[in-house]
Amino acid sequence: MDRHDPVKLGAERASMVDAVLERFFSLSKKRAAPLGDHYVHLWGLLERNTQGGKRFRPRMVMSAYAGFGGDDMDAAAYVGASFELLHTALIVHDDVIDRDFVRRGIPNISGAYRDHAVDRGASVEIAEHRGVSAAVIAGDLALFNAYRLIDRSGVGSPVRERLLDVLDEAMFASAAGELIDVDFSIAPGMPLVDDILTMERLKTAVYSFETPLQAGAILAGASEAAVTTLGEFGREIGIAYQIIDDVLGVFGEEEATGKTTIGDLREGKRTVMIAFACSTPAWARLCDLIGKSDLTGEEAMEARLLLIECGAKAFAEDLARGYAHRALARLAEPCIPAALRDELHPIAETVLKRVR
Amino acid sequence: MDRHDPVKLGAERASMVDAVLERFFSLSKKRAAPLGDHYVHLWGLLERNTQGGKRFRPRMVMSAYAGFGGDDMDAAAYVGASFELLHTALIVHDDVIDRDFVRRGIPNISGAYRDHAVDRGASVEIAEHRGVSAAVIAGDLALFNAYRLIDRSGVGSPVRERLLDVLDEAMFASAAGELIDVDFSIAPGMPLVDDILTMERLKTAVYSFETPLQAGAILAGASEAAVTTLGEFGREIGIAYQIIDDVLGVFGEEEATGKTTIGDLREGKRTVMIAFACSTPAWARLCDLIGKSDLTGEEAMEARLLLIECGAKAFAEDLARGYAHRALARLAEPCIPAALRDELHPIAETVLKRVR
Repeated sequence: MDRHDPVKLGAERASMVDAVLERFFSLSKKRAAPLGDHYVHLWGLLERNTQGGKRFRPRMVMSAYAGFGGDDMDAAAYVGASFELLHTALIVHDDVIDRDFVRRGIPNISGAYRDHAVDRGASVEIAEHRGVSAAVIAGDLALFNAYRLIDRSGVGSPVRERLLDVLDEAMFASAAGELIDVDFSIAPGMPLVDDILTMERLKTAVYSFETPLQAGAILAGASEAAVTTLGEFGREIGIAYQIIDDVLGVFGEEEATGKTTIGDLREGKRTVMIAFACSTPAWARLCDLIGKSDLTGEEAMEARLLLIECGAKAFAEDLARGYAHRALARLAEPCIPAALRDELHPIAETVLKRVR
Repeated sequence: MDRHDPVKLGAERASMVDAVLERFFSLSKKRAAPLGDHYVHLWGLLERNTQGGKRFRPRMVMSAYAGFGGDDMDAAAYVGASFELLHTALIVHDDVIDRDFVRRGIPNISGAYRDHAVDRGASVEIAEHRGVSAAVIAGDLALFNAYRLIDRSGVGSPVRERLLDVLDEAMFASAAGELIDVDFSIAPGMPLVDDILTMERLKTAVYSFETPLQAGAILAGASEAAVTTLGEFGREIGIAYQIIDDVLGVFGEEEATGKTTIGDLREGKRTVMIAFACSTPAWARLCDLIGKSDLTGEEAMEARLLLIECGAKAFAEDLARGYAHRALARLAEPCIPAALRDELHPIAETVLKRVR
């Protein structure tokens, strides 16, 4: 592998993970064939759902693994694929919870099933039920097999048990975070900034950053101290990413981020910026705009100006900067190999670049 | 253990499984405590959801295990508890799919959450969303930990891998069966009797009978032939049970079965009886009754009479009898120890008794 070209390295690792997933889905579809065409179709949709991503989480598994001297990249690819399936399971079920039929503008599993059923003459109500049902089932299969793929990596004890413990941590935290997020969207009040940070840590940072890095380190036989430190880096940078993600969700450029900059405002999404703004005089006007489902473009601009004026945007950016710097401090600890530090540094840099 | 008193034996085994689950939930709630009261509450609801059952599946794991000479009943209890968690996961998500808030007349996880939210002033719509969301998350935790409990049983390779393969079979089949069942409830036509039998085998018989028995046998080191034969017994008797369950769902005594005898008729549930009736002249009148959501008591009696007259009830009972006899034939094979045959025989007898 070309360790001197990070882009090429990332692409190579991603395609190793793709190969593992391809094999897994190919086997599953063969197995599904005697059990009905619809079941094969479901597996196909699940496969399609895992394709096209940046393989961010698996690549972190493999970065940490290689960074601690691991050389069985096949095993690392399996562990990486496991985290990709966990990610798939969580977003598929997240869409069930939110009754979303599209993700990033494209029909998700529920949406694909619904459209399929509508094409065959079903009413929208019945088709949506079928779509949601299929997504519940598909998410279950992805979750079950996330665990299974670690077993299928061929890794022996006691590393296997430690990897499964880490995956367990990822699941346990994600469920807690998802529940908090559900409560936010339902409760009438405004959570504290701290509560939102907790939710973002649990719902996303743990399974997206912290545990994939730890898994890679464990697989490579890194020391306890290194695994802990790497996890802390992952946690801090993961939270920083989420904060910035939410800032971009209001202020970002749609072409660059692929997300709209009005969706979160219309939804009234509980973010660090919104929670801060709620404690300022600007809230007297902002509370009419945040969560207004038919917010116009002009009203959105007004909301953005208010969020800047009341200091909410700067507050969030300062917070993210703090987390990114703390993350970099972890990377600087002696138990982290220099080569790995160099490889992970850009992740923190990306965050810092966005807050200048 | 008192092997001469099957009732006492069953109760002892059930309480060993209860003990495993109690420890598991106790640990999980402690772990959940720093992550929020609501998360502890969710785990508590999940625990309550697993209590009070007959522990049928775990007891079959332990019957097969003891029947093949196994004596580490603790390990068997873990494997049994794993199947109980799988069962919990499947029914929790089944209720999400059906948007049911009660099960056997008692609020399920969705229902408990919904009621909790309504008590706190939430609208019914918002409360139901919260309930369904909580159930998606809870089902995920149960499913993930079904797999995990087999690991926590302390069983070594290669038995561990074979047990996980069996659990995989259970999950794979259940997902396929659930999808077929969803399709039935949505598609306008009437499935063939064969398709319904396939659905019942996949959705219920595999994870409720076939794989628990196989898991117990594998754990005890039984031969391949014995594991296969026992699985076939489980499959045949599982299908027989489902057919009879559906007959009782229309003709049974509510006090005995705990289920209403009008629900399935009102729902138009696709059963062997209904599929058969659809091919008879009686369908000309039955089709107005089956699936009528406000079916009266008198109309239900008319439907029952028609189902008897057109031969549908007898057809289903004959079919179930056939499966039960085939199941008994499997039990009679030489690779099944006599003591296990004696222990499992009553399961088949129960089915046959109900069809006399």
